[in-house]
Amino acid sequence: MLSFELLKTEGLARRGRLTLNHGTVETPVFMPVGTYGTVKGVLPRSLEEMGAQIILGNTFHLWMRPGLDVLKAFGGLHRFEAWPRPILTDSGGFQVWSLGEMRKISEEGVKFASPVNGDKLFLTPEISMQIQSVLNSDIVMQFDDCTPYETKGHVTTEAEARLSMELSLRWARRSRDEFTRLQNPNALFGIVQGGMYENLREASVEALAALDLPGYAIGGVSVGEPKPEMQRIMAHTPRRLPAHKPRYLMGVGTPEDLVEGVACGVDMFDCVMPTRNARNGHLFTRFGDLKIRNARHRGDERALDPTCACHTCAHFSRAYLHHLERCGEMLAPMLASIHNLHFYVNLMRELRGALDEGRFESWRRQFASDRARGID
Amino acid sequence: MLSFELLKTEGLARRGRLTLNHGTVETPVFMPVGTYGTVKGVLPRSLEEMGAQIILGNTFHLWMRPGLDVLKAFGGLHRFEAWPRPILTDSGGFQVWSLGEMRKISEEGVKFASPVNGDKLFLTPEISMQIQSVLNSDIVMQFDDCTPYETKGHVTTEAEARLSMELSLRWARRSRDEFTRLQNPNALFGIVQGGMYENLREASVEALAALDLPGYAIGGVSVGEPKPEMQRIMAHTPRRLPAHKPRYLMGVGTPEDLVEGVACGVDMFDCVMPTRNARNGHLFTRFGDLKIRNARHRGDERALDPTCACHTCAHFSRAYLHHLERCGEMLAPMLASIHNLHFYVNLMRELRGALDEGRFESWRRQFASDRARGID
Repeated sequence: MLSFELLKTEGLARRGRLTLNHGTVETPVFMPVGTYGTVKGVLPRSLEEMGAQIILGNTFHLWMRPGLDVLKAFGGLHRFEAWPRPILTDSGGFQVWSLGEMRKISEEGVKFASPVNGDKLFLTPEISMQIQSVLNSDIVMQFDDCTPYETKGHVTTEAEARLSMELSLRWARRSRDEFTRLQNPNALFGIVQGGMYENLREASVEALAALDLPGYAIGGVSVGEPKPEMQRIMAHTPRRLPAHKPRYLMGVGTPEDLVEGVACGVDMFDCVMPTRNARNGHLFTRFGDLKIRNARHRGDERALDPTCACHTCAHFSRAYLHHLERCGEMLAPMLASIHNLHFYVNLMRELRGALDEGRFESWRRQFASDRARGID
Repeated sequence: MLSFELLKTEGLARRGRLTLNHGTVETPVFMPVGTYGTVKGVLPRSLEEMGAQIILGNTFHLWMRPGLDVLKAFGGLHRFEAWPRPILTDSGGFQVWSLGEMRKISEEGVKFASPVNGDKLFLTPEISMQIQSVLNSDIVMQFDDCTPYETKGHVTTEAEARLSMELSLRWARRSRDEFTRLQNPNALFGIVQGGMYENLREASVEALAALDLPGYAIGGVSVGEPKPEMQRIMAHTPRRLPAHKPRYLMGVGTPEDLVEGVACGVDMFDCVMPTRNARNGHLFTRFGDLKIRNARHRGDERALDPTCACHTCAHFSRAYLHHLERCGEMLAPMLASIHNLHFYVNLMRELRGALDEGRFESWRRQFASDRARGID
């Protein structure tokens, strides 16, 4: 079950509310990524405290470990990972795609060797739906063929992208049929493909819209393309999706990308950037990014971002974070992950506030100028 | 400033209360180790929630990184590491001792090469006191010469142990003099040495007691000796220390060691075991220890220890912890460290309750039989 209420718009930007089986989600929203049933380096309570509304799980990874028998015994992913709020799971398509030469795609599905133990595995739309039913995620993604930016060393041609997009469409129908057969009580999202070709994206949108799914994602971005290519698709596709359904741009991106995505009509985002960058000492702040390993932070008694209300900024200095990082202490990625995730979650909270008050455009200009200012 | 109140005794076991500049500490107490200004893998708030009353810092490590200029700017270690409660710092003697062949001991102090950058460094009682004054730790340890269990491949002889113990005594006086000169407002503890020789331990106790320091530690244990040797010293030395002063057994040990230590008259303990073992998936419970990597936990929906009130046991299953560990997720050592530290802190809380009610002996028997029972 899912409903989506469009509360307000400003230009193409949308303020909405998703109702899911484990709670409501105010949009636009950023969804922290919890691949293996844990958002890396943070306790679920920290996610709740920063206001995370919905997190991701990766079907492929969870299928490998802990495996379906364990997840079934727990009645799904929520109880297993102690996260009572909504969860979205991807379909496994992107992860299988990431295996590169180790996989073999046919009409039926994808054959590949397990990266964990080498077992020969087969993933199909039906199996993906079966796994996601066991996970009991609030939002289930269709199994898709993620069109790469490059194929065999050349930029994927229109003919190649069309074949891939059409396969994804047939897999969307099979996903929908299996999802229905399983009487999954959650919400199935379709995924728009079509590579970097607008005409293919339009054909994909049209055919998926005809399936009348409860939500749609734009896939096949953040797959190695140059940034302007991603931006071209982001400007093109979201606004062509059904207006009364949520729109999710998969795997994007920087804080700037998220704000631009909202301006293009996107409602939902996920990205590993806040947690991955945190582990590398790359921290986001209102006034630009900061490398905490840099020697200039060694004696700095200030918070990372004095305008930030996260647990890290409320209690610890740049000097302390610098020290932890230099000593290789586990607390360094822990505190950095809390901060970066809070930055993303809070960015969307501020953005929603601006939309509520009809001042998204001025907020967006302020955001851009603050971020460009650079940090003291 | 420090005062110690002896509230109750049962046999040699003591229930007491330390008053320090940053708060009171109920004894017997376990002190989590925060070498580099962080108890590895846990947020200060987690330590507060589990009821940790006082934590350790390592003078030697903090002198190397972040360095005294930074710590001075923060007014000491408390604000730097965001821990408002009491802190005890060691003197650096044990760490210098750990450098083994890389150090050279003289009457004046210890010359050694920095393990961080190779710089030639010199540590003396005076310098140790100066560093600990900057750290502003509530309990300052004298600079001592830690007598090893073995010297040049043979068990340290009585003559060798005597020389070392006598050097520690002279360094105790120099520590006291410098501590006084610096007008350090905190409490200086002396350290009993003497190796595995009771007569030397007694001479050390007598000479240190004459200095009338506010507390005393038993050092030179957990230095590679067989367990029965440690137990022999633990049974011998604590009860010979002044009754109205707190007694601290350095670097010990297992849960069983702590309970035996209390029975021998010890008030304070520190050990890296709870955090180090947590990072290796070795978990302590009321009914014995548990290796979370073991396949038998794969589908176990129960908490690690159903009698435990820690954040980990309140929210997560053995199956989930097993999964995190197998996936190498950072949350595994985070949750395990919370649990193991809580186990140690709570063990002492229960033990204090038993002492308060005059039932330490029966509690101790129950503890031993519970632990020996083994975990389901």
